[in-house]
Parts: sequence; structure tokens; C-alpha cells
Amino acid sequence: MSLTVVGSIAFDSVRTPFGERDRMLGGSTVHFSLAARFFTDVRVVGPVGDDFGDEELKVLEDRGVNTDDIERVEGGETFFWRAHYEYDMNIAHTDETQLNVFADFDPKLSEASKKADILFLGNIDPELQRSVRESCEAEFAGLDSMNFWLEQERRSLVAAIAGVDCLLLNDAEIRELTGEPNLARAARVAMEMGPGVIVAKRGEYGAALFTTDGFFAIPGYLLEDVQDPTGAGDSFAGGFLGYLDSRRAAGDSVLDPAILRQAMAYGSVLASFNVEDFGTDRIQTLTREEIDERLRDLQRNTRFEVESAPAK
Amino acid sequence: MSLTVVGSIAFDSVRTPFGERDRMLGGSTVHFSLAARFFTDVRVVGPVGDDFGDEELKVLEDRGVNTDDIERVEGGETFFWRAHYEYDMNIAHTDETQLNVFADFDPKLSEASKKADILFLGNIDPELQRSVRESCEAEFAGLDSMNFWLEQERRSLVAAIAGVDCLLLNDAEIRELTGEPNLARAARVAMEMGPGVIVAKRGEYGAALFTTDGFFAIPGYLLEDVQDPTGAGDSFAGGFLGYLDSRRAAGDSVLDPAILRQAMAYGSVLASFNVEDFGTDRIQTLTREEIDERLRDLQRNTRFEVESAPAK
Repeated sequence: MSLTVVGSIAFDSVRTPFGERDRMLGGSTVHFSLAARFFTDVRVVGPVGDDFGDEELKVLEDRGVNTDDIERVEGGETFFWRAHYEYDMNIAHTDETQLNVFADFDPKLSEASKKADILFLGNIDPELQRSVRESCEAEFAGLDSMNFWLEQERRSLVAAIAGVDCLLLNDAEIRELTGEPNLARAARVAMEMGPGVIVAKRGEYGAALFTTDGFFAIPGYLLEDVQDPTGAGDSFAGGFLGYLDSRRAAGDSVLDPAILRQAMAYGSVLASFNVEDFGTDRIQTLTREEIDERLRDLQRNTRFEVESAPAK
Repeated sequence: MSLTVVGSIAFDSVRTPFGERDRMLGGSTVHFSLAARFFTDVRVVGPVGDDFGDEELKVLEDRGVNTDDIERVEGGETFFWRAHYEYDMNIAHTDETQLNVFADFDPKLSEASKKADILFLGNIDPELQRSVRESCEAEFAGLDSMNFWLEQERRSLVAAIAGVDCLLLNDAEIRELTGEPNLARAARVAMEMGPGVIVAKRGEYGAALFTTDGFFAIPGYLLEDVQDPTGAGDSFAGGFLGYLDSRRAAGDSVLDPAILRQAMAYGSVLASFNVEDFGTDRIQTLTREEIDERLRDLQRNTRFEVESAPAK
């Protein structure tokens, strides 16, 4: 039972209508691993600079995340992102991006990371995603990306997508990738590119799952208090793939439709906790009991019985 | 068992990326009643001009909708709306609005319409909504509105809302009405205005229900073919309130949380059929069997079992 995640480690400065924080621990692998670690053993592969200290490492290590493959680039600085959100927190407005050591990131995976059962390729250059995928033994690989790669490196991205089992993108990105304005059709076209499992992330509206078996849609958990949506998609992916790995280890198939649905629900729950506070603050204090309690709550709040209307 | 709907009757000219139609039968009461009539006896109250012919009336009457209170204004023309949609069909771009006879609409309800068990106040001047509500005996009344009234006649709209049991608005409108950017909080504030049931319509993303009991969220049915979203919200309201009336007539409480959820599901199903073709074309040929089949399908595609992840 093990999961390797490759991608960014960052410092994020974020302002929302509800507050402002400077240089919080962030990045896709951080949000992902802090969610996935509730279900499986996670190994993080990503670069940091001299400004990344023991305090930051400790956030991961204290929660059982393996940091052996975090690469410290001497004389470099960690990826930095500054952004703000308006009241519509589905849209991040980027104010500053300093790629720093992330610009020259060339993932170096230990043998242990290569041997992981599940692999998650965070949003990095699709050429790197492809070469990491090829070097790994994972029996199930997921991939995230963003509009920048869709527009600049489309051919390379399509090749990377062809090598994975599961594509996790925002719904608008799936539409852009396939040129199909309708999400259900777009997911079908994406499936023809290779992955048998397509996950469309829909921000506060939840997420949708497409397989050859059909679709599954889950609304977002409706919170009264949303502080900072940064990292919600990565927390979703961490909950989703982490849960799948735990079931795989228990002898189940990760392609079982019922298990994929449960993974979607766990992903939604982890994403909902992510947004309750800035950065990783809420997820850092989260317990497994709280997760399972909210999962049952989400089920209650989305379930209806079919009782045919009385004849007119 | 009866339901009165008060609002617009229109001719709609609509262009979407998938086609274009001129002067189709439309308007909120038309979409509403063609959905609600599957569950209950519906009476339409609204104005038309000389251009509204027997052919249009027949669409309603052939499907059991009572048109006695459709008011023909001699020498007048029927409300006309022209709009187009881009690929993001959540947003209607209005190109032309001719209120015509709708501008001077003063609803005149027959005794039978006043005696209906359920009342739906479509999007009209909130002063009229309030006076209609006061003249009716309905034990449960729903109300829709739009940003125009929110911005121009806020005080009057809030008074109208205070008089109904159920508010059905787009999620953005609920946020605007209450000044609360968070939907769950906004719904709570809206509830304090009077209605115990708040329904937030979320376009292709589905809908959410708020009561003192908590929330219920249902994703939209994911269709591969969406032709024209016009009227989807009214079809939702028709399915929702029509189903509630059928259960009320069977002796159930329309405030029973389980029944409200089923009504949300029926609303979603009717809305999903509405958008499959232009105007009312799909709903005109719809059968009760198709509705119940899609309801079961929607349940299958949104349900997950809670099975706690194996211990790590």
C-alpha cells in the first residue's frame, strides 16, 4: 500500500474576502499528500529551495508523509505563488508567480517511489509526467494538468494522458482539451485518449466521474464558512486516489464502480475540509473520525428515495 | 389536487450553438405547467395578445392544462423575447424584449384558480405577486423572481417573499437578495425573510434545497445533448411543486424532508428533459414512463454507499 505524488511544493500568499496570509505551505503535492495520508502511505517528489525549512518538512513528516524524495536545490528558492479571490471563489486571480527551483524541476524518484502501487502526476510539464510514468511500476496512475499546458504543449499533454489510467481536470479544462462544449461528450472524447476513468472537478459544485460504465455526479458539501479554496482540487485528488489505494491493498479492484464512487465521496469530503481554513491549516488538524462523520453527512444530504408519484 | 401558476406566456426566438428557432411557445407559466401537469391539475393565469392562436392554446389543453384564466387582450401582442446562448449555456444573452400585453398584466383569477391547493408565482412584479398570494387560499405557495426586481423593487420583493412558503431562485440571485456571498448562509438569511423552504437553482450543476432541517443537494443530470436551456428553471419548478401537490393530495405533508427531496429529484428530471430540445418540443412528447425511468437513472448516478476505508 503506497502512493507516490510528483509535482509542486510551494509558498502561497493568498488574500480572500475573509482574510489574508503570507507564505503559507502549499503546492499540489502538499495538499494532495496531507489528504491521501489518511488512507495510505504517501511519498512526495518535488523540489524546494533553501527557504524551505525543517518546520515545513515537519508538517508532512509528523503526519506520516514520506519526504525522502523532496529535493533540496542549494542556492535556490521555493516556488512562490501570490493570488487573491473575490466573492466568487471558484476563480483564482494570480498576482505573482515565481517558479524558482520549480522551473528546472527534473523529478528524481527513489526505487521506493518508483515501486509505489499508485502514482499521481501533479500539474507539471507533460514531458516530465510522461517520463515519470514510464519509470514507475504503479498499476494505476492519475494525472492533473492546467490550461497553460493545454494551450502550449497540447501534443505532449495528449501523449502523457495516453499513458495514465485516470485524468483529473477541472470541467472547463476537459472541455478545452477536447474541444467539446458538452461535459459528458468531452469526457467520452477524453476517454478515447486513453484513461478509462475521467474525473471532472467542478469547484463548489462538486465533481463528476465518467467511466465506460456511465457517469456519477456528486455535489459539493455545502459549507457556511469557506475561507480559502486554494488546494481543494489537490485535496480532492488525494482523498480520491488515497482511498482507492487503501481498497486496492485490501484486495479490491480500483475500477469497481462502487469503489470509484466511494472514492469520489472521500475526495469531496477532503476538499470540503481544505477550504474551511487558509492553506493547509484545517487539514493539518483533521482527524479520521471527522472525515467519516462528514462522509455520512454528505451521503444523507445527497440521497433521495425513489417513490413514484401517486397516479394523477 | 390543483395548482395555479401565475406569470408570463411568451413567444421566444432563441439561437444556441446547436440551432435557431423563431417565435416558439414559451414563458414561465407554459414551461411550468407542461412539467407540473404530469403530477397534478394545473391552471394557468397569464396574458396573451391577438397573435396567440388556437394552436398555442391547444398545446396546453391537449395535455390537460386548464387555460380558462389565460387572458386575451384585444388589440395587444403577446410578450416576445429574443436571446442567444454561447457554448456556456448557463448564461442567456437577451437581444430583445417586447413586454407587450405583459407590461400591463393585472392577474385576474377565477374562483377555481383562487381555490387551488398550491400556488406558483412566476417572475412578475412583486406587488402583483403579493396581491395574488393574498387573494388565494393555497396552503403552499412558491415564488420565483429575477435580478431586475431585486435591484429595482427590493422592498416590495422582500414583502412578497415574506408571504410565501417556498422561494425558488438561481443561486446568484439568492446571494444578491441577501448580500451573502456564501450560498448556505444566504439561504439561511432568505429563510429568515419568511419561507421555510429555499430552493437554489444552479443551472447545469443541479439544485440545492435548504430547510430548517438542513440541506440537500442534487447534481444536474449529465446529458450528452443540450439544445436549449430556456425554461429549464420553470420546468424544474413545475416538476417540484407538481410532485408536492400530488403527495399533498395523497395525504402527505409537503414539508416532509423525504418528500421535498423526491420533489427536487423530479424537478431535476423535468429540467433535464426541457433542455434536450428547443422550447417545449421535448416536454410536449414526454411520457410519465420516461420521467420515472430517468428518475431511477438519476438516483443510480448520484448514490454511493458508505463503506469506511480499511484501517491504514
